[in-house]
Amino acid sequence: MTRQELFQNIRRKQSYLCIGLDADLKKIPSYLLSEPDPIFTFNKQIIDATADLCVAYKPNIAFYEALGPKGWESLEKTLDYLPPDIFTIADAKRGDIGNTSELYARTYFDYFNFDSVTVAPYMGEDSVKPFLIKADKWVVLLALTSNAGADDFQLLPVGADKPKYLFEAVLEKSLAWATPDQLMYVVGATQTNFIQRVRAVVPDHFLLVPGVGAQGGSLEEISRLGLNKYGGLLVNSSRDIIYAGSGKDFAQKARQKAQLVQQEMARYLDLYLPVTS
Amino acid sequence: MTRQELFQNIRRKQSYLCIGLDADLKKIPSYLLSEPDPIFTFNKQIIDATADLCVAYKPNIAFYEALGPKGWESLEKTLDYLPPDIFTIADAKRGDIGNTSELYARTYFDYFNFDSVTVAPYMGEDSVKPFLIKADKWVVLLALTSNAGADDFQLLPVGADKPKYLFEAVLEKSLAWATPDQLMYVVGATQTNFIQRVRAVVPDHFLLVPGVGAQGGSLEEISRLGLNKYGGLLVNSSRDIIYAGSGKDFAQKARQKAQLVQQEMARYLDLYLPVTS
Repeated sequence: MTRQELFQNIRRKQSYLCIGLDADLKKIPSYLLSEPDPIFTFNKQIIDATADLCVAYKPNIAFYEALGPKGWESLEKTLDYLPPDIFTIADAKRGDIGNTSELYARTYFDYFNFDSVTVAPYMGEDSVKPFLIKADKWVVLLALTSNAGADDFQLLPVGADKPKYLFEAVLEKSLAWATPDQLMYVVGATQTNFIQRVRAVVPDHFLLVPGVGAQGGSLEEISRLGLNKYGGLLVNSSRDIIYAGSGKDFAQKARQKAQLVQQEMARYLDLYLPVTS
Repeated sequence: MTRQELFQNIRRKQSYLCIGLDADLKKIPSYLLSEPDPIFTFNKQIIDATADLCVAYKPNIAFYEALGPKGWESLEKTLDYLPPDIFTIADAKRGDIGNTSELYARTYFDYFNFDSVTVAPYMGEDSVKPFLIKADKWVVLLALTSNAGADDFQLLPVGADKPKYLFEAVLEKSLAWATPDQLMYVVGATQTNFIQRVRAVVPDHFLLVPGVGAQGGSLEEISRLGLNKYGGLLVNSSRDIIYAGSGKDFAQKARQKAQLVQQEMARYLDLYLPVTS
């Protein structure tokens, strides 16, 4: 999917919601466990109930890996089921030497046909570039994450002459690797103090923002500071939406929750999306 | 496996060789492709031919993921086939928020029963800790990798008062997360300039060293600078050994290659292993 198409979907649906498909056998309604593929059945119903309210889905690959070959099959069926106007993110946080990143890219882009993969920056340019060889496929690079451990290294001051944080060095350096048409950044919703510093380096890029809801980030703050003239935000919610209910009406409960978020986003698009001619 | 057991194996086998099981359908001998599970058949023959010459095997997870559910099955069969005196490393380079790292840990430690997983440090302590909850399971943390992109961030000077490289900050901070009985570090064989700086921070830890051979690192240099009184080195070789031959005698060719490396290592153990009473 192109950046232009993603922005069109945001305007049409009045939503920049990304739903995390983190289906866990321990958390999905127990009556689904007698299904031949409980995880896919759960995902399918969540997708049916929410696809008009969000612009992206983000399966967290760990949840599927943990189930062995069966999890892989559930993931494949889920991807095949998603409507074509949805941007898909493999939340895999991969990154390795060139020949290995190439294989991961093949897995997520060719085998599963994801639009994007989350990638960790620690190993540098040649670990990220193999994910960028197809014009319509994206890297979502970790910059400033929403967890407590983000402080350990991402907020270290780096560089001798003009000090900046490591996450700023990651943003700056990666600008040379791809245009905003193929590169977005993970910036946690708990990091509102730093969103302006992020936008100072990458004013035009999309940011993928986890950490609203369960982790405590404010949707209004993120929207006010993060929306740009290309939309520029995908705000992720996982547990808050997909586990909004635990009975037979779980999908309806998920829809109600997603609808509340979408309605809030429609207001913020109205308030904070820069006006362009 | 405990550190003590690993060191015993090193002394007994006179080897600190780790063999990378990076089986690729495009590179294994073509006559294997008619087998029901070519990847497992290849691995099995490599293991039969080399298990007495090495102390560890390291499947690169990307190679198995790229094959979908079938790859997962090949990996499972490979792990089940490995003899018990072998240290196993899931080269996965994972690292995510706590609940997700927990799932990855469950996958590699419980489902596959690996001894260790390679982990990327960018997300900090709470992304690494879930891999450390079982006393006999290890984290192999990326410190200074062997690829060109290592320069991009790992060699950035960090900290205002007493400047050091980012990889040194990773070593220092992670010392608080686990003892040398559960934590080792990836340090590329191409980084001999920095091995002394690594050893200054982590004199007692094991280092997993990729990049000898195909990537150009010197085994003698690494051994001289890296061996410590606990052994302290696992030197990985993948392509050089497993693809030493391409015909029906591929396993025998792999054995010959592994034997040369083992014999060289026996000399270095004699020369460079610190004498303890």
